[in-house]
Formats: sequence, structure tokens, C-alpha cells
Amino acid sequence: MKIVSYSIREDEMPALNAWKQEHPEVDVQIEQDLLTPQTAKKAQGADGVVVYQQAPYDRATLQALHDAGIKNMSLRNVGTDNIDMEAAKELGLKITNVRVYSPNAIAEHAAWLMGRLLRREPEYTDKIQKRDLRWAPEIGREMRMQTVGIIGTGHIGRVLIDILKGFGAKVICYDIFQNPELKAEGLYVDSLDDLYSQADIISLHVPSVKENIHMVNDTSIAKMKKGVIIINVSRGDLVDTDALIRGLDSGKVAGAGLDVYEDEVGIFNEDWNGRPFPDERLNNLLERKDVIVTPHTAFYTETAVENMVNISHNDNIKLINGQEPDNPVSLD
Amino acid sequence: MKIVSYSIREDEMPALNAWKQEHPEVDVQIEQDLLTPQTAKKAQGADGVVVYQQAPYDRATLQALHDAGIKNMSLRNVGTDNIDMEAAKELGLKITNVRVYSPNAIAEHAAWLMGRLLRREPEYTDKIQKRDLRWAPEIGREMRMQTVGIIGTGHIGRVLIDILKGFGAKVICYDIFQNPELKAEGLYVDSLDDLYSQADIISLHVPSVKENIHMVNDTSIAKMKKGVIIINVSRGDLVDTDALIRGLDSGKVAGAGLDVYEDEVGIFNEDWNGRPFPDERLNNLLERKDVIVTPHTAFYTETAVENMVNISHNDNIKLINGQEPDNPVSLD
Repeated sequence: MKIVSYSIREDEMPALNAWKQEHPEVDVQIEQDLLTPQTAKKAQGADGVVVYQQAPYDRATLQALHDAGIKNMSLRNVGTDNIDMEAAKELGLKITNVRVYSPNAIAEHAAWLMGRLLRREPEYTDKIQKRDLRWAPEIGREMRMQTVGIIGTGHIGRVLIDILKGFGAKVICYDIFQNPELKAEGLYVDSLDDLYSQADIISLHVPSVKENIHMVNDTSIAKMKKGVIIINVSRGDLVDTDALIRGLDSGKVAGAGLDVYEDEVGIFNEDWNGRPFPDERLNNLLERKDVIVTPHTAFYTETAVENMVNISHNDNIKLINGQEPDNPVSLD
Repeated sequence: MKIVSYSIREDEMPALNAWKQEHPEVDVQIEQDLLTPQTAKKAQGADGVVVYQQAPYDRATLQALHDAGIKNMSLRNVGTDNIDMEAAKELGLKITNVRVYSPNAIAEHAAWLMGRLLRREPEYTDKIQKRDLRWAPEIGREMRMQTVGIIGTGHIGRVLIDILKGFGAKVICYDIFQNPELKAEGLYVDSLDDLYSQADIISLHVPSVKENIHMVNDTSIAKMKKGVIIINVSRGDLVDTDALIRGLDSGKVAGAGLDVYEDEVGIFNEDWNGRPFPDERLNNLLERKDVIVTPHTAFYTETAVENMVNISHNDNIKLINGQEPDNPVSLD
């Protein structure tokens, strides 16, 4: 059995080498290239491909895969927006993705952003870089004194709740789908307005569906407590960035921790050092001392990458063997 | 009743104003000056003083207090090393300090340092400042995958254990005085060597007594796991800084989070911006991307400062009224 694994990064190699050792029956051909109509030819003679990229899987690319005799494609990531589903269906492709790789990676990152903002780390980092080692006046806040509002109590929100409880913080939650255990604990408030009026920190863990887009906006910020900290490690378009900046400028919002940004595609995961930075608004956020931006790195842990490599390659074997994969992608 | 409160900082004012409102019977005279032989005269006619400073309470200062008619002195901090105890005793002074103001402030700071190092924050901060927004290759680690060794299970160590459990980390502990609850949970290892050989992260929460000075040294580092992270938010002299730097340089130690430094007195809490920095070794630590130094700010939270203000002023009232204070300082 032969699998071609495209766009393998250096940091994926330890996990991939371990997986290969556990699967001596599989010949894994490692490629650093993205999957394109040209590179698809490298899969000729293989039984499946494993891929990870933001670049499109368009009709030409999928056709080239088909021409190389490939029917089985496993994504190492969750997103499928970049697949031409109609072409995939016509060409008889079978596709899997990785739905859950590490909710802890994301939840922990959210907690770390909270801690850095509560302790005013960007201000201290700036002072310390200048060798100003005075501690006043940037006094910190303790997590145990905060009421944290979690919007969305799926996998990630629930891990974050456990983390915050360990600190002794008061946790309140909102979700249209209530988890029975959290409900029994009395953690849910009745409405988003209740959450906005009580929370010192608000963390978003909901999908980017129509109802949620720009849920953090001028109207919702007006309902929040003065000095609120807003955390978004989920999807950039949950936050109306202009409204957030207005909230920060007015002092209503004390800080924001953002691992995502509504216009991040084509900007994050690129090196702009020595080149004109393409987004003035993002540049404003990056310069501010009351905002921490991380370039979509919340997921990026050794554990998460290991899971992405293992789950995708395991599912590719299942596709090749005609078994039901764990993470089928519906082409309809 | 009148209390003179010396060297009150801006960040102490909210807590002090709240305390004054709750104690309308007390006239609090606020002074920004340190207590010195000269400023002691300002206490003439008062019943007690509340103080906070690293500068010495030497014989001349205490004599001046005595001459101003003051017998009751309450420190807003814990340390009493800077008091001339013999003079205090001869002059019949009664002294209190603040022994526990917020173990959570310190424990949370230790956790935040761990998180920043696990996620390689100094490297990202540097990249992001240069507008290099690529996430590879600085892959992070998750707290839940770590074994954390806590040395010292007093107030602070125990708060930190609860925090780490919330993350799902494995916690092991060592202390010569074992806490019965932690013992029942089976968290103690038999020896420091056991802790060194198992822990991915080691955090120090022991006093700076003779046996503990330079407990992190070449010998103990040699017993630790490759890639260990060392956290010290307790006392600077627990760590042999030269040995730590050798450990970092060799790659044996992956990171260190330090809120204290063995030669910090006279360097921390000073502004060296535009002046020659006086400590080449500390400068090395400040420049490194595998080390985070915070200038003794772990304690510095709104909650801790509030407790320091309240506890010291409450005890000063008790001294004035001839009652037993909560935190008497023995002059013997």
C-alpha cells in the first residue's frame, strides 16, 4: 500500500516517522510541495494522498489526481471550504478530514492569552526591553477574582471551563445547545445579555455561522462591563474588528486576545519582514499594548500535530481498504 | 485616632480610599515619602505609622519615630530584614507585617510563565514584532501533557497544584513537610532526585533557608530531564544563575521563567532606560528567547495590594488599641 503525503512540514516529521514505524506495511512518500495539477502526477501508482493546504483543491487539481489514479484523499486539517465539491463528486473522490485534533491546544491558548492580558504582559515586555524594571503602575489582576463568560460549550469551551475552575475563577456560560452536566452545575445564564452584563472576561467558542458573524459589535460591547477582556481563538469573523477598536479606544474594553482575524487569509502565516504590511487595521492591533495577536497558532502544539498526522493517515488506510473512515467528508 | 501611611503608591489608593470609608473613626494622613529620620517628623501627634520600603529602618529612623511619639509601626509587606531589631526593641516599638497577602497572585504568575514558555511566546513576540507571522517552526507544548514537579507545598505550591490539575497536567511534589491531603492523593515523590528525573517542568516554592540556597545547580540540573523548564517565583538565591545559564546553553534546560534573581536588590524596580545596565549576567537572561524574566512582579495584583493595605492598617489599629495584632513581628 502506498500513500503520498503532500506539504509535510519539518515539525510533522517526528509524528510521521513514528506513524511509519507502526505501519511497516505502508509505503509513505513524503513531498514538501503543495498538491497542484503539476505535483498531482507524483501520486501516480499510489493508493491515496494525504494533504494540508490553504490553496484551493480546484477542478484542475482534482482532475489531475484522478488522472494519476487516486480516489482517496485525506486532509490533515478540518477545513473543507477550499475543495471544489462538485468536481470531487463527479470524479468519484472519497475525502476525509480531521475534525477534532486537540481541543486542549485551543483552550489552553485562550487561557494563556487571558493570563498575559490580566498581568499586562505586553506593557511589561515593552518596559523590560527598554530596561525599565519598575513594577508600578501596571498592576495585574488575578484570574480567581474574575467572572469569565464562555460563549459556546462544545469540546473547546468545556476544556477551558475546567482550566478556569482550577484557577478558582467564576465561570458562566451561554450556548443554544446546553450541555447537561454544565446545566446541572448551574453554569448557564439565560441570555447573551446576561453574560455580557456579568463577565469580566468573554471568550468565544462558537462556529462561524450566519447568526454568530460579528456577534462582538458596537451593540454587544455597549452591554459589556467596563474593563472587559475579549478573547477570540475561534473564527475571525465573530468579531467586528472596527467595533472592537472603538471599544478599546474608549476604554470600555480593557484588552483583547486574538488568535484569529476576520481578514487573516493571505496575511497570517506569511513573512512580512522587510515588506510593506498589507493591512493597516491589523497593524494597529499588532502595535497596541492592550491587544495580543497571535497568528492562528492556538492549534499549533506537538500533540495537535501528532493527532492531525495520525488521524489523517489512519483514515487514508481505511479509505484504501474500502472501510468506513472515522472522519468522512460529505460531498453533498 | 490618626495613622500616617508612608510611601503610598498610586495603585494603592483605591484600596486605601475604600479602607478609609470603612473606618471613618481613623484619620489617615497619606505621604508619598519613604520613612526616613527627616520624614518621621511628619508622624508627630499620630498614633501609628504604616510603611512599605526596601530602604533600611535603621536606628536613626526608628529613633526619629520614637521622638515623634510613635510606638506602633505596621509594614504593608512581609520582609523584616531591613529593620534594626535591637534598636526597635530598645525603643519599645511594636511592629506588624503582612505574612500572607495573596498566594494566588504568585501561583498564577508561575502558571502564566509556564504557559508563555510552553508556547514559546518570546520567540513569537520577536517574530511578530518584525511582522513575521509564520507559525512554524516554533511548535508549542500543551500543559495537559506535562509532568510538573512542585518543590514546596505551602500556601503557594498548593494553589499552583489546583491550577495545574485544572489543565489536566500530572503533578508531583516534594516537601520535607508533607501536607496530609496531598499525601493521601499520592502526589509526593520520595526524593528530590525522583522529582528531577520525572518532571518536565519544575517550580520552586520553598523558603530561602541555608539548605535550599542554590538548590538548582550543576548537579541537580544534571539529574533533570532534557528539555526541562524551570520556574522560580520564590527567592533568587534558590537558583545558581551561572549553572542555569550553562544548562540553557547546553540545551539541557529548554526554558526558565524567573520572577526573582539572586542579585536583584538595587536592580529590579529601577529604571535603567538610557543608563548603563549594571549586571551583565542579568542582561544575558533578559536578552534570551528561552528565558522570561519579570522584575519581581508576581505579587503585584490588585487583590494582593488591597490585602496588603487592609491587613497592615487593621493591625495598626489593633496595636494602637492595645489589642493582639494578627501579624506581630517578634523583635527577638
